[in-house]
Amino acid sequence: MPVVRVTLIEGYGDEVRSSLSRRLTDAVRATVAAPLDGIIVAIEEVKPTSYMRGRVSRMPGKPLPTPAETVQAFLSAMERRDLAAARTFLADDFRMIFPGSAEFGALEDLVAWSRPRYRFVKKSYEAFDECFGETGTVVYCFGKLSGEWPDGEPFEGIRFIDRFTVGDGKLLDQKVWNDLRA
Amino acid sequence: MPVVRVTLIEGYGDEVRSSLSRRLTDAVRATVAAPLDGIIVAIEEVKPTSYMRGRVSRMPGKPLPTPAETVQAFLSAMERRDLAAARTFLADDFRMIFPGSAEFGALEDLVAWSRPRYRFVKKSYEAFDECFGETGTVVYCFGKLSGEWPDGEPFEGIRFIDRFTVGDGKLLDQKVWNDLRA
Amino acid sequence: MPVVRVTLIEGYGDEVRSSLSRRLTDAVRATVAAPLDGIIVAIEEVKPTSYMRGRVSRMPGKPLPTPAETVQAFLSAMERRDLAAARTFLADDFRMIFPGSAEFGALEDLVAWSRPRYRFVKKSYEAFDECFGETGTVVYCFGKLSGEWPDGEPFEGIRFIDRFTVGDGKLLDQKVWNDLRA
Amino acid sequence: MPVVRVTLIEGYGDEVRSSLSRRLTDAVRATVAAPLDGIIVAIEEVKPTSYMRGRVSRMPGKPLPTPAETVQAFLSAMERRDLAAARTFLADDFRMIFPGSAEFGALEDLVAWSRPRYRFVKKSYEAFDECFGETGTVVYCFGKLSGEWPDGEPFEGIRFIDRFTVGDGKLLDQKVWNDLRA
Amino acid sequence: MPVVRVTLIEGYGDEVRSSLSRRLTDAVRATVAAPLDGIIVAIEEVKPTSYMRGRVSRMPGKPLPTPAETVQAFLSAMERRDLAAARTFLADDFRMIFPGSAEFGALEDLVAWSRPRYRFVKKSYEAFDECFGETGTVVYCFGKLSGEWPDGEPFEGIRFIDRFTVGDGKLLDQKVWNDLRA
Amino acid sequence: MPVVRVTLIEGYGDEVRSSLSRRLTDAVRATVAAPLDGIIVAIEEVKPTSYMRGRVSRMPGKPLPTPAETVQAFLSAMERRDLAAARTFLADDFRMIFPGSAEFGALEDLVAWSRPRYRFVKKSYEAFDECFGETGTVVYCFGKLSGEWPDGEPFEGIRFIDRFTVGDGKLLDQKVWNDLRA
Repeated sequence: MPVVRVTLIEGYGDEVRSSLSRRLTDAVRATVAAPLDGIIVAIEEVKPTSYMRGRVSRMPGKPLPTPAETVQAFLSAMERRDLAAARTFLADDFRMIFPGSAEFGALEDLVAWSRPRYRFVKKSYEAFDECFGETGTVVYCFGKLSGEWPDGEPFEGIRFIDRFTVGDGKLLDQKVWNDLRA
Repeated sequence: MPVVRVTLIEGYGDEVRSSLSRRLTDAVRATVAAPLDGIIVAIEEVKPTSYMRGRVSRMPGKPLPTPAETVQAFLSAMERRDLAAARTFLADDFRMIFPGSAEFGALEDLVAWSRPRYRFVKKSYEAFDECFGETGTVVYCFGKLSGEWPDGEPFEGIRFIDRFTVGDGKLLDQKVWNDLRA
Repeated sequence: MPVVRVTLIEGYGDEVRSSLSRRLTDAVRATVAAPLDGIIVAIEEVKPTSYMRGRVSRMPGKPLPTPAETVQAFLSAMERRDLAAARTFLADDFRMIFPGSAEFGALEDLVAWSRPRYRFVKKSYEAFDECFGETGTVVYCFGKLSGEWPDGEPFEGIRFIDRFTVGDGKLLDQKVWNDLRA
Repeated sequence: MPVVRVTLIEGYGDEVRSSLSRRLTDAVRATVAAPLDGIIVAIEEVKPTSYMRGRVSRMPGKPLPTPAETVQAFLSAMERRDLAAARTFLADDFRMIFPGSAEFGALEDLVAWSRPRYRFVKKSYEAFDECFGETGTVVYCFGKLSGEWPDGEPFEGIRFIDRFTVGDGKLLDQKVWNDLRA
Repeated sequence: MPVVRVTLIEGYGDEVRSSLSRRLTDAVRATVAAPLDGIIVAIEEVKPTSYMRGRVSRMPGKPLPTPAETVQAFLSAMERRDLAAARTFLADDFRMIFPGSAEFGALEDLVAWSRPRYRFVKKSYEAFDECFGETGTVVYCFGKLSGEWPDGEPFEGIRFIDRFTVGDGKLLDQKVWNDLRA
Repeated sequence: MPVVRVTLIEGYGDEVRSSLSRRLTDAVRATVAAPLDGIIVAIEEVKPTSYMRGRVSRMPGKPLPTPAETVQAFLSAMERRDLAAARTFLADDFRMIFPGSAEFGALEDLVAWSRPRYRFVKKSYEAFDECFGETGTVVYCFGKLSGEWPDGEPFEGIRFIDRFTVGDGKLLDQKVWNDLRA
């Protein structure tokens, strides 16, 4: 039943406005038991010169890259061992925690640590979840690992889950859980 | 910079309106790079008799229990092995998947499965994350396990993460990853 | 799909606000092919001291008596031949036109005209229709007449329709068509 | 004094928006005794991608043909005895009731019934009234009949009124009253 | 904290909307102790055919010349003794009051009166203030006078202040105070 | 024609909301040539818990004392030579400039300066003007002085004008012009 109206400075693309509308709808549904068909979102656009905050005209804030896409791009770079590309997605003080509480700051350290554990690993994803919180967005992804053990024997179907904190388009940390022998 | 206004039928408590305001703020922040101080949310309340959808007056939808609270209440009941209480939080076709792809529908089966694994286990939580998605809310919680092995030896500091799907106030499924020996 | 919001000075009763909401819904439905469930009306009430037009605070306009009720009260008074009561519903220059283009200003003239036509007449109503137009509201009612002819023979089931123009709560004119022998 | 704002998906022509504004004004005037100059209607248009109901973007509902125009087109076809054209305006279970409670479903039956009553008839209209109700729109028109009796003698100035129920652009029924000899 | 939204018929230029936004911001700040950054103004534009008052579509009111600019133009014409140009800014019943309560209607009378007082005078302005009041705008300007006494001796740094009432783009009156020997 | 709606946290008295409405009306009138009767202001109040800026609930800003009232209270204290009371209205770095460019910071200095000029002086006011500007409010008042010269001779009808800058409820400066012999 709630009607949500957003006053937005004009200039955002369709995709941003659709995405905003969906997320606002989800926020309402998570809070009150309204029938889905009763939740309306309308975005009312005004010219930059028709908007003032604190007596100053404002330009629209940039649309943000979807946090889940940032995570996907990082994971894809890691999978093909392109550490230079992967590094571009990381905040300066990025930290990773892997099973057994193994903790790394540099991607090279992770690679060194994993060498005795498996030759390579691929991830197939069941889902990505985005949580919009007070201090940034948290992205979860989970699914199955496949790859080869150090002796060349293949494996597959091993459960994993990753948790990333994303801020300003950069990955702040990564936490990993899986069913590999720790 | 966006201004979000919500038309709501009056009758919700302060906590519900605050919670809705925070979630709408987070949804905006996740989508456009607006300065936090420029995001305004105002909830405008109207009388039930001042609201009509489809020519029919509407009553406010019930406030929903916070999904994270539902999860916490379930985990707490499980920790004290109060299966009857725990069961009240479950949807009819609730499923659990544990490390090693062990899958259960009934809580008793989980208990039987865990008996040779540990005498008891306690969870300390680092965080709860809520993702408001198209088909319901996903709740994540993660932290450390402590307890006793079957031989009475204590353990602690073992990493875990749980993922719950929550719909209509009931838990639909639970997925568990941890660093225990599978 | 349209969302209609009305800013109203507070003080109107539930019935007035419901009636306003229904009529606004009907006006939208008559104009665009929106699904009924997608038409929302919300009435936002403000304090009289929170409303100014032309730099002057305003009091809420009085709720208007339903035009159909005014017509019903008049017809009921006429049926029991209480001309004094009936007259209170009429504007000063009220005019009636009956079958055969018989036209009257005074109720007494109508009574005199009808005397050779029937001893008495009762109306049973199938429906009342209200049309909200630029210059006032038009009320239609139609149904069946029953009564007695001058010779005492009863009659029934004779079709009739009345059309009233209503302005400022008074009847401005009445037009009558029916299947009586003119 | 009321201010009515409508959120509409952009794409409707000037005529539709003007018509909607007039009808909303009339609905307000019929309900509260506001001075005409104090009734404001503003239609705020949003892009289709800026509107979501139930998490789904919507396209604007089609503008509806004015019910009075549909009635006029039907009456015009009947007057020139173009039954094929007239039939296109009728719903499948269209029914007509004429003076004397004569009832027809097929236009041919009406034509047969009228043959011994008059050679032809023309209508001049005094007014069309539209009532927007819960179950559709009712259109009234009234005025004077002229034509020729079966013996070729002309007549004119005979009062009539028609009542049509219109739904989804089709005529559902027609009720006729007039001062012709039944 | 207040959010001010204005429904305006589209067609005003950026400068008019910016000016309106600034003035509305100032009006809010003068009334409630809101932090400046918390005052939002958004102007929502609608098509002329999407706006009706009193059931009549409206065209946007003309933007008004800034009253301070009108005053400046008049003072500039007076300074260069272009009485014809200066006169175009005056309402028909324009009145001036100068120190010593000297009062004039015609610019020529002022010129005659000033001749024994100074050969010429120039104004340098410290500030222009505009007060938007119930009956029009009042413009104040103040600063320093410089010029020559009748004997040709120069003077400068003499304080002055002028007060103009402006209505419909014309000057209605002028009041002058200064530190010249009256 | 513009419709101005203000979202305000509830808690302000009638006088504050009326004052805000009038000032917003004046700001609109000064900018676009709308007919006065077409300018609507409506203040929509929301609960403090229904308002969030930057994810934080806000309390309503205090209503501000009318700047003109602050000026009046100061002038009244000065007229009765209650310097202690007068001083409570002054900001720390308050400055006064009197005819002849006499400038003071302390009220005692003004009193000493005026002693050879007049025994006492009273002001009668023709008008107070308030200008709401970017950096605070400017208050003007003007009218006539009466009193006694040092030799006891009375005077009256001498024109004066004062200009005050007011910030945070304190007087920041005062500028005085009048027709007294400087």
